Amino acid sequence: MTIKLYCFGESGNSYKAALALQLSGLEWEPVFVDFFNGENRTPEYREINEMGEAPVMVDGDLKLSQSGVIQQYVSDTSGKFAGQTPAEKYEVLRWVFWDNHKLSSQAGMTRFLMNFLPDKHRSPDVIGFNLGRLKAAYQILEQHLEGRDWIVGDGITNADISCCGYLYYPEPFGFDRADWPNIDRWLNNISKQPGWKHPYDLMPGSPADRA
Amino acid sequence: MTIKLYCFGESGNSYKAALALQLSGLEWEPVFVDFFNGENRTPEYREINEMGEAPVMVDGDLKLSQSGVIQQYVSDTSGKFAGQTPAEKYEVLRWVFWDNHKLSSQAGMTRFLMNFLPDKHRSPDVIGFNLGRLKAAYQILEQHLEGRDWIVGDGITNADISCCGYLYYPEPFGFDRADWPNIDRWLNNISKQPGWKHPYDLMPGSPADRA
Repeated sequence: MTIKLYCFGESGNSYKAALALQLSGLEWEPVFVDFFNGENRTPEYREINEMGEAPVMVDGDLKLSQSGVIQQYVSDTSGKFAGQTPAEKYEVLRWVFWDNHKLSSQAGMTRFLMNFLPDKHRSPDVIGFNLGRLKAAYQILEQHLEGRDWIVGDGITNADISCCGYLYYPEPFGFDRADWPNIDRWLNNISKQPGWKHPYDLMPGSPADRA
Repeated sequence: MTIKLYCFGESGNSYKAALALQLSGLEWEPVFVDFFNGENRTPEYREINEMGEAPVMVDGDLKLSQSGVIQQYVSDTSGKFAGQTPAEKYEVLRWVFWDNHKLSSQAGMTRFLMNFLPDKHRSPDVIGFNLGRLKAAYQILEQHLEGRDWIVGDGITNADISCCGYLYYPEPFGFDRADWPNIDRWLNNISKQPGWKHPYDLMPGSPADRA
């Protein structure tokens, strides 16, 4: 049975799940969530996910949400991306949690505030505060990638798939690849993986649709 | 060998790890991190954790950081708190990720801004924005706990231990137990567990030390 992923192009959290599915070789298909018209706030969607978020993965009777959980399921099912040894598995999980806590959460919110919210609702103080926190996160990732091709071990893992979630998007959110040479090199390593696609090509929906 | 946990009383992220260790029955002891004097930003501490954060757990040669990873290790070692079935395990992990993404991350930052940062550095816009996001998170948790004693299944799991991380603290951060009856009842269920302690009793360091 084909795995379904409720997602939309602008969602970096959805991208983490979609990219894990795509690179794993599992059969999957996207189901468009019309986030910008409020579909995720409808009672019907709250039945799918009480947290009101995308992505949601459905595989037969199993329904999962939170990108980190879907990534874990893809690893459990495909045997890929979770690390080779017990120490590597904890290290992979560490970076997935760090990403959820410090990187993607801030990047997603800041990109939303700077690009998808009407001007009158934008607070320069909030954006500035978030940009400061994000810069600290980029510095930690940049330093960790010094001399490394991958965040953990010798190949791509959920750590990479999680941390890259927002970093291919073109909209401004305080991230310029040219400022971070190790991150830039590592993003190229990921995009060279067989089957890799940009978020706007891998999932339905993009700002171009709403232009 | 006794497990060491680098932590400090004000840190709800540390509390999640400390509480998991405490309730598991594993032998552990706290090691004080002098966060408010910048110990976590020193080169020595960056050797312990490049992310500059607490908690860090050391068990013999194994060093782990990120509270969600330490909770997973406690479960792997003690057999407790991870859920009984595969579906429960994913559901537990889902709430731990949600907490890291939407609840504790915002609660910790907002409490820091409102209580531990000098007045002149506080931005009302930033605090107001965070309080709005936090309220949405409390609503999701409150609604989920309707008719439930525990977040997942019939007993305490890492989902509970993670989501309660900041909710016992007395300092204001937009959370009043009286406003959320299901959350209030559930926090009582947790604090009735054998061995439970308040964060300022379970870990070294508290605002009283700096008064």
